[in-house]
Amino acid sequence: MTITITAFENSPDGGRGLARDMRVRWALEEVGQPYDVRLLSFAALKEPAHKALHPFGQIPTYEDGELVLFESGAILIHLAERHGGLLPKEGNARARAIAWMFAALNTVEPAIFDRSLVTILERDQPWFEHRLRALDELIRKRLGDLSARLGDADWLDGAFSAADILMVTVLRRLHGTGLMEAYPNLVAYVARAEARPAYQRAFAAQRAVFDAAR
Amino acid sequence: MTITITAFENSPDGGRGLARDMRVRWALEEVGQPYDVRLLSFAALKEPAHKALHPFGQIPTYEDGELVLFESGAILIHLAERHGGLLPKEGNARARAIAWMFAALNTVEPAIFDRSLVTILERDQPWFEHRLRALDELIRKRLGDLSARLGDADWLDGAFSAADILMVTVLRRLHGTGLMEAYPNLVAYVARAEARPAYQRAFAAQRAVFDAAR
Repeated sequence: MTITITAFENSPDGGRGLARDMRVRWALEEVGQPYDVRLLSFAALKEPAHKALHPFGQIPTYEDGELVLFESGAILIHLAERHGGLLPKEGNARARAIAWMFAALNTVEPAIFDRSLVTILERDQPWFEHRLRALDELIRKRLGDLSARLGDADWLDGAFSAADILMVTVLRRLHGTGLMEAYPNLVAYVARAEARPAYQRAFAAQRAVFDAAR
Repeated sequence: MTITITAFENSPDGGRGLARDMRVRWALEEVGQPYDVRLLSFAALKEPAHKALHPFGQIPTYEDGELVLFESGAILIHLAERHGGLLPKEGNARARAIAWMFAALNTVEPAIFDRSLVTILERDQPWFEHRLRALDELIRKRLGDLSARLGDADWLDGAFSAADILMVTVLRRLHGTGLMEAYPNLVAYVARAEARPAYQRAFAAQRAVFDAAR
């Protein structure tokens, strides 16, 4: 059975690997699982054929035989159920890694994602500076807490896990903002993840889509 | 071993059960698991003792012997591993329910949560009306997609699951905004969930904290 995921035909991130298919590509590379990609235009995302797979008309989706999934976090948990190397086997360690998965997506990502949107959509609005300052303050609070907990560890909780895939892809969205540089251990954490061969294969694969679209 | 969770000593929601401990209380009631609650002041949330349990200084946390968890979504998955009734046993159905858990927290909640904050914190700002309109537009898009997918089903994907606990607690934050009323099946979905005895026990328990604090 071939696994098929969906991704943007023309990613708005300019080939920087910031779209959420990157998480699924990376996880699939970590477990050595080949996959096909179906590329979608922005118009196709909102069509019934895609909404039958993804109720909110987004990417990525994951198809494997009869199983259809959406939400990158859920796809990573499913892959971890089927393959070793993405979540600890021991119950308590596994539960803690899943806590970090939700923390990445529900506690750390929202302000960082909003900041990306605001710098694109609200740059000319009179309140732009104020909104940016408020978001940066919240982002610094989250980064400070994350940095304090990570300390000099390599990964969030013991061995590398799907939680690191999610957290690193969230933090990478800060590249170029100058916000992460106050936390050298977070900069090193992201670099350590980006050096993994599975990350590099996934990055090259999404980059190839961008290059082909130009 | 006694399970202990944390909650606000003085919830900012006025006893309406909108804080995230409600999700964990509800899930514990669904599986019939007794629990203790440690109430925390806003100051205590930021102290080292609590941050050792929750890196971002929030509620709820979950302690059971040596295991310490944070993030309501992760706590619900852990409870589902230990007890029946919160997630399907069959692999594909379980993976789909987990997709809905992430959808509730990462796709539906952010705009709804932002709207709550904006109406409290930004009401006097010059951009208030603009921000509210933009958030309401995004919320309506999400509700429209959710309503279309739910159709006339009772729950998100087959039997009641932890995904319904998360989605309903997210949607309840819209009470009083008038946004949900355009989608009668979502109004009925929330009412159906609120009628569950486990929900009512959890609601009464968090309400008792509010009443005692007054």
